[in-house]
Amino acid sequence: MEIDFDKAGGLVPAVIQDDTSGEVLMLGFMNAASYQETRRSGEVVFFSRSRNKLWKKGESSGHVLKVRDVRVDCDADALLVRVHPVGPGVCHQGYRSCFFRSLEESGAPRVVAERTFEPEAVYPRPASGKTGEGN
Amino acid sequence: MEIDFDKAGGLVPAVIQDDTSGEVLMLGFMNAASYQETRRSGEVVFFSRSRNKLWKKGESSGHVLKVRDVRVDCDADALLVRVHPVGPGVCHQGYRSCFFRSLEESGAPRVVAERTFEPEAVYPRPASGKTGEGN
Repeated sequence: MEIDFDKAGGLVPAVIQDDTSGEVLMLGFMNAASYQETRRSGEVVFFSRSRNKLWKKGESSGHVLKVRDVRVDCDADALLVRVHPVGPGVCHQGYRSCFFRSLEESGAPRVVAERTFEPEAVYPRPASGKTGEGN
Repeated sequence: MEIDFDKAGGLVPAVIQDDTSGEVLMLGFMNAASYQETRRSGEVVFFSRSRNKLWKKGESSGHVLKVRDVRVDCDADALLVRVHPVGPGVCHQGYRSCFFRSLEESGAPRVVAERTFEPEAVYPRPASGKTGEGN
């Protein structure tokens, strides 16, 4: 079957879920080329909207995401990638998951996870806090 | 904190996860109005890209998604909504999760879930198979 890359300008959202714990780790986007490279290499490769190029998760940090299973939704325009995450976390802010904050109804964020690593020790340049794309 | 609705033309992807089992049930998009309505009502409301309007999940089937927690990612452009799903499944094709197929590397789909309901008994009109938006 064909993944529907056309609905959102060549991209589909890819939910990254820990295959063992079930924790949702992050969400990225893939285009056809990054999807193909993900399948070829067995490690997750996104398309970075801010940098406008393929972006291999973990290319500098070593925190790669080993693909265990790829699922597609009913209308083939979203992916669920079940992975084994190498390293202590995927988030450039030092957490296992990028979804480390709960949002109150008021809009106030509340951190609901423990930091699992020091980002400064992993990412050579200061995390910008803007792109969410620590490598 | 502010959710970044600007990065993708007013929309953010919202991953829907079963709060009890951890299963990822579906992915939809929210704009600011659907997010506000989700928080106000305590039940998930998406923005339908194909119908170009707010879309309350379960509005006709009764299979609403009760919000248990809303999480936001590090760069505030994706949401993880943990829910209690009312009813036997969220997928208009009759499955608990819309991600009921695994994709082989060859591109061949393989159904990895059991059907939990008969869509014909729930959705009055035949499922189109195109929008993925059974109500």
